[in-house]
Amino acid sequence: MMIAKTIKAGMIQMTCCPEKASNLGKAKKNVREAAAMGAKVICLQELFSTTYFCWEENYDNFLLADAIPGPVTETFGKLARELDVVIIASLFEKRAEGVYHNTVAVFDADGSLMGIYRKHHIPDDPGYYEKFYFAPGDGGYKVFDTKYGRIGTLICWDQWYPEAARITSLMGAQVIFYPTAIGWASSQPEALNREQYDAWQIIQRGHAVANGVFVVSVNRTGKEGEMNFWGGSFVAGPFGELLYKAPHDSEVIHVHELDCSRTEAIRVHWPFLRDRRIDSYGPVRERYIDKSKSEVVG
Amino acid sequence: MMIAKTIKAGMIQMTCCPEKASNLGKAKKNVREAAAMGAKVICLQELFSTTYFCWEENYDNFLLADAIPGPVTETFGKLARELDVVIIASLFEKRAEGVYHNTVAVFDADGSLMGIYRKHHIPDDPGYYEKFYFAPGDGGYKVFDTKYGRIGTLICWDQWYPEAARITSLMGAQVIFYPTAIGWASSQPEALNREQYDAWQIIQRGHAVANGVFVVSVNRTGKEGEMNFWGGSFVAGPFGELLYKAPHDSEVIHVHELDCSRTEAIRVHWPFLRDRRIDSYGPVRERYIDKSKSEVVG
Repeated sequence: MMIAKTIKAGMIQMTCCPEKASNLGKAKKNVREAAAMGAKVICLQELFSTTYFCWEENYDNFLLADAIPGPVTETFGKLARELDVVIIASLFEKRAEGVYHNTVAVFDADGSLMGIYRKHHIPDDPGYYEKFYFAPGDGGYKVFDTKYGRIGTLICWDQWYPEAARITSLMGAQVIFYPTAIGWASSQPEALNREQYDAWQIIQRGHAVANGVFVVSVNRTGKEGEMNFWGGSFVAGPFGELLYKAPHDSEVIHVHELDCSRTEAIRVHWPFLRDRRIDSYGPVRERYIDKSKSEVVG
Repeated sequence: MMIAKTIKAGMIQMTCCPEKASNLGKAKKNVREAAAMGAKVICLQELFSTTYFCWEENYDNFLLADAIPGPVTETFGKLARELDVVIIASLFEKRAEGVYHNTVAVFDADGSLMGIYRKHHIPDDPGYYEKFYFAPGDGGYKVFDTKYGRIGTLICWDQWYPEAARITSLMGAQVIFYPTAIGWASSQPEALNREQYDAWQIIQRGHAVANGVFVVSVNRTGKEGEMNFWGGSFVAGPFGELLYKAPHDSEVIHVHELDCSRTEAIRVHWPFLRDRRIDSYGPVRERYIDKSKSEVVG
């Protein structure tokens, strides 16, 4: 078990183009640059090797998927070893014929593929037809004892679910990384854009507060069709404090040193984990609680 | 079942003095004023009938407790009926010899005591010795089908727990009311005050986002000994948007009309409840998950 005192987190917020090779090349170049800037745990955005193909339901897009292990994971494993860094790489995973996932692969600094996390919460709404492509992850929540610290990984839509952040934190994550692809429809008014970004940031900062962990959220930027990916990647500290926010409309390579001793300080002074009423949380496993069934739950 | 289209929420943020009769008198006067301003569901702050006696462990303070039902609940029941309003009243409850709770009583507009909710999460840290006084609530989470809408109630330290807000929301709460007593030590620097207030507000706005519900948080204000209660009561909409924030250092009676149709709009466009992975949430009932036990949970 590797509990780090500090973690130098690298975040890569980039635009993507239709050519997969080009995106992979840019991602590798950016990882090198982040490493040169001192990053030790480097997180790429969700589905960085392609444009966000889920904007439509198109069978041809299944050809974009990668096997794990496969050529892409081999490439990033080698890169991790060469640079002595941990890499969190999001892939469209082909697990079997007809079984595809939205997955992150985590490479340790020795280049080994430590494991994968398959996105549990799958969205489906106009412009984000992910249920067409991705089977929900069945492997549970994950943390990885990397050379540079114990990190948790969740993916995009997972970020709206306090349960996912809670479980990942209870497993000892020092940081939760969220590779993401979320944007504004071009037709939307600016006030609505702002409201949506704020909700997205606030709930993740809320996870940081609830659990006393760092949150590093890495989003895509750039315009793809009618979608403006909103960038705005950020780092929150273990009391929800906003430590860094990237611009909305430009590519960014950012390195942020996380002082992990802050988790202990916060959790001792605000002992939320101590006082959890685990005996009363059974109903979180309900879809909905019909009042007629019972006046009292928990 | 009473699902309201709008709810006129009344919030009473006040200072308290050592004389219980005086606080009760002020609370009643304020409830009348809120009702005159149009409020239909009126929430008083936590333990409004006394100063925040939990700053010390003093056996004499147990004499401050009230039975439910008892003279205090009788008074507020009558007031609710007279004004045709719902009242959420926080009490130091004596349930039996040696069994005391931090409780809210909810009165319907006909004056009936609809039920109580007993605080589940009990803090204990310097200046907030609540574990000395209050047994943890054993009655589960609650919603109340009042004349003016289905409301959920949680209390102060509960507000740091996403599970409590989740379960209350799954029971159909349109609004979660949080009577609160939280403040800054006089010795603290302003930057720390700001960070603490922000964390407090952000996590509750996060509950609003996660669940698509309104959050109405009603805090005490004023200086008591070395504690400056931070006021700053607020209303958040179902996407976490800040609709109202009270000043930190003055008494306030505020009425806010909540447009409950917003919950349907938000929940359909951001269908977080639809995509919950209830099959994977079992581990939220763990105190901590020792990694050696298992690499994978959920």
